[in-house]
Amino acid sequence: MAYQHVLFAADFSDEALKVGERAKDIARRYGARLSMIHVVEDVNISLGGGYELLPVLPELPDETLLRESRAALGELASKLELQDAELWVVDAPSTKEGILGAAQDHGVDLIVVGSHGRHGLALLLGSTANAVLHGAPCDVLAVRI
Amino acid sequence: MAYQHVLFAADFSDEALKVGERAKDIARRYGARLSMIHVVEDVNISLGGGYELLPVLPELPDETLLRESRAALGELASKLELQDAELWVVDAPSTKEGILGAAQDHGVDLIVVGSHGRHGLALLLGSTANAVLHGAPCDVLAVRI
Repeated sequence: MAYQHVLFAADFSDEALKVGERAKDIARRYGARLSMIHVVEDVNISLGGGYELLPVLPELPDETLLRESRAALGELASKLELQDAELWVVDAPSTKEGILGAAQDHGVDLIVVGSHGRHGLALLLGSTANAVLHGAPCDVLAVRI
Repeated sequence: MAYQHVLFAADFSDEALKVGERAKDIARRYGARLSMIHVVEDVNISLGGGYELLPVLPELPDETLLRESRAALGELASKLELQDAELWVVDAPSTKEGILGAAQDHGVDLIVVGSHGRHGLALLLGSTANAVLHGAPCDVLAVRI
């Protein structure tokens, strides 16, 4: 019954710290492992994962962007005093696919995400929380900002 | 930081018990109050709350339906051994409006809902979890079935 692996899906908005505090708190109460992920969307197809049926040739995101994201995720982890958390920066066609793929691969049983977070062009297509809810392999906690 | 009032949004599907167990567990871990709600949709306008802009004349739901829902909610509470939980059966134009209205009125800070639950004609319009996520005044935990 107890959650064992909580995944904090982090954007770098002003809301990220509050969502992260919630993820940290719930992981602590369950004695669960906590990981953090940030998804770098392949810009040419960052349409919130709604286009999986179209053939696309993903472009590798700019190395600089990945490096900056790793630094920003590390900084967020420090602010949250989450030195032990695993930090994952992944590139994916959409934030949704990046988060759900990692959750599947790492046996995550709770994804914590901001209820209003939006990424890239997903801004046009609804919140990340809504996207993640569709097809999540586990529970999803949407933290109200 | 701690949740103080958890609301379990119950349908009467086979999934309800699992979602309820999760709501009970998280409320216990937070030392939070737990309430249960079931919404009886006004059939003539049970379209998932997407039609608020249309003028409608809500019909009172059948008293029998309300009575049966109260009995079913009580039975679910017993199965979950939640004798202390407050049980609310409300009628609303949509399940979303019923849940969010009650959450607002009673200072709920976490709504627990099944990730795939569907009610009435909302079946055509996406999951209750997705609907609740839009405009929820608090955090929402979508429990994967």
